[in-house]
Amino acid sequence: MSLVVVGTLGFDTVETPFGRRDDTLGGSASFLGTAASYFTPVQMVGVVGEDFPEEHLDFYRSRNIDTSGVEKLPGKTFRWHGFYDTNLGVAKSLETQLNVLESFDPTLPSEYRSARYAVLGNIAPELQSKVLDQLDSPQLVAADTMNFWIEGSNAALKKTLKRVDILSINDGEARQLSGEYNLVKAAEAIRAMGPKILVIKRGEHGATIFTNETIFMAPAYPILTIKDPTGAGDSFAGGMMGYIARRDEVNDDILRQAVIMGSTLASFAVEDFSLDRFRRLTEDEVRLRFSEFKNLTYFEAHGTKIWDEH
Amino acid sequence: MSLVVVGTLGFDTVETPFGRRDDTLGGSASFLGTAASYFTPVQMVGVVGEDFPEEHLDFYRSRNIDTSGVEKLPGKTFRWHGFYDTNLGVAKSLETQLNVLESFDPTLPSEYRSARYAVLGNIAPELQSKVLDQLDSPQLVAADTMNFWIEGSNAALKKTLKRVDILSINDGEARQLSGEYNLVKAAEAIRAMGPKILVIKRGEHGATIFTNETIFMAPAYPILTIKDPTGAGDSFAGGMMGYIARRDEVNDDILRQAVIMGSTLASFAVEDFSLDRFRRLTEDEVRLRFSEFKNLTYFEAHGTKIWDEH
Repeated sequence: MSLVVVGTLGFDTVETPFGRRDDTLGGSASFLGTAASYFTPVQMVGVVGEDFPEEHLDFYRSRNIDTSGVEKLPGKTFRWHGFYDTNLGVAKSLETQLNVLESFDPTLPSEYRSARYAVLGNIAPELQSKVLDQLDSPQLVAADTMNFWIEGSNAALKKTLKRVDILSINDGEARQLSGEYNLVKAAEAIRAMGPKILVIKRGEHGATIFTNETIFMAPAYPILTIKDPTGAGDSFAGGMMGYIARRDEVNDDILRQAVIMGSTLASFAVEDFSLDRFRRLTEDEVRLRFSEFKNLTYFEAHGTKIWDEH
Repeated sequence: MSLVVVGTLGFDTVETPFGRRDDTLGGSASFLGTAASYFTPVQMVGVVGEDFPEEHLDFYRSRNIDTSGVEKLPGKTFRWHGFYDTNLGVAKSLETQLNVLESFDPTLPSEYRSARYAVLGNIAPELQSKVLDQLDSPQLVAADTMNFWIEGSNAALKKTLKRVDILSINDGEARQLSGEYNLVKAAEAIRAMGPKILVIKRGEHGATIFTNETIFMAPAYPILTIKDPTGAGDSFAGGMMGYIARRDEVNDDILRQAVIMGSTLASFAVEDFSLDRFRRLTEDEVRLRFSEFKNLTYFEAHGTKIWDEH
């Protein structure tokens, strides 16, 4: 089943301990859509300026991403400049130019409206709601957000959250949104705001998923060289939702697999700058790493041979 | 098989957001020994002062811990005063009184010398080596250390590490000891110093184990109320080594179970101040939580029903 993806499309200038790249392809919708495209056809919604080269749209299309929902407006494309120090944790934003994003008013092509799955990347919660307004009967909606909206658009965000099934945010944002330090309590509070499923992204420590029935902890794949963390969270959400759309069903088993698939895509995203790792990533590599995740956490819960056997 | 445990024995004054406790039973050997005692007989090595009440020694003995290696010296017992802020991460040490620990020169009772397993708690690396000198033919030795010794006794620590099979330290200490930020690289560097097995403790994020063959990631059990993190790392190491001593064998399967057993004991330790949770912890509770760990990370690696099936 196809997956509607909305978010930013733009140019990133990124500095990490491994180098600097200027004006590379970035934006939440770029990572969301590309990661999801390994599993399912994607319908992309976004806005670019006149300076956005056709080759980037060609790249999306080469990944089976429908770009008819990408508007081109007069003016310049969204730009972001970020810096990571040696710990490669949260980026320091050196500059953000909204440009055409300031006048973005998403209109979905009619073919998009029947989509059963949607993932709302990190943009203004009002825009996220506008996308939802245009979907006939979405089955499962995932959303991302950030501290900027938690602080500045709290009421709008709360409205959007009521319509969201899966929220993925990082641990700091979960604490901020809920006002609870303990993540188990934070999850309870946030799930009461709407999303039945909460994904707390913990960067190099993996992700924890809270649902009504269960808590699931996905490890992060141990990577020798993380070149550029940009897009890891979006690649995670894109991989997760792409997998769910492909299965066209959600239960605890599929959700757990989806989270590991998201972690798999995120682990590749950070191995190179921009979307470069995806440009050469094969299905075989994805399949192999997914199965490697199994061994990272597997242990034999029976056969401890203590107590009962003595 | 019995397990020799060495470390500090003392009085902790602890402040957390959940309250303050003065002069409660603490010390690395207290947590190591008590956690290990759920699995195997423990032979404790340590020093206390004249002010150390007999009831604490009685508590150890009630847990099947041999205290004949606990020396009582003239003077005062080791004391520590720590403070945790709301994030309950690393403690801020407000005061450390070494007292009788300053003149500690561990002498093992002759019955201890044949022990096949030992865990060296966080004390001066010279003292850790002295304990090893007195073991006839230890099969497997685990050790803990901290930034204080990495900085101040680096040469002695390196000597001890050559004789250690399992080192357990936290992520910051692993980075400091190796000079590598990336934990995969840090683990490689530290394993070249001696310990074939490195356990990196990641607090609320669990633990990662590096061996020749494998990387294993143990989650931390999600706890609603962490009252006092003191002793979590020692309870982890004690549970892990106690389980290994009980099995009297090490292979990848047993190591993974041991790590989860360590995580289980650590998860209980933090639920109350001092050793209080252990005072009422039953084998049934340990068994139940160990099995709950399985569901935290389990996913079905086969049956994704994508690619191959289409």
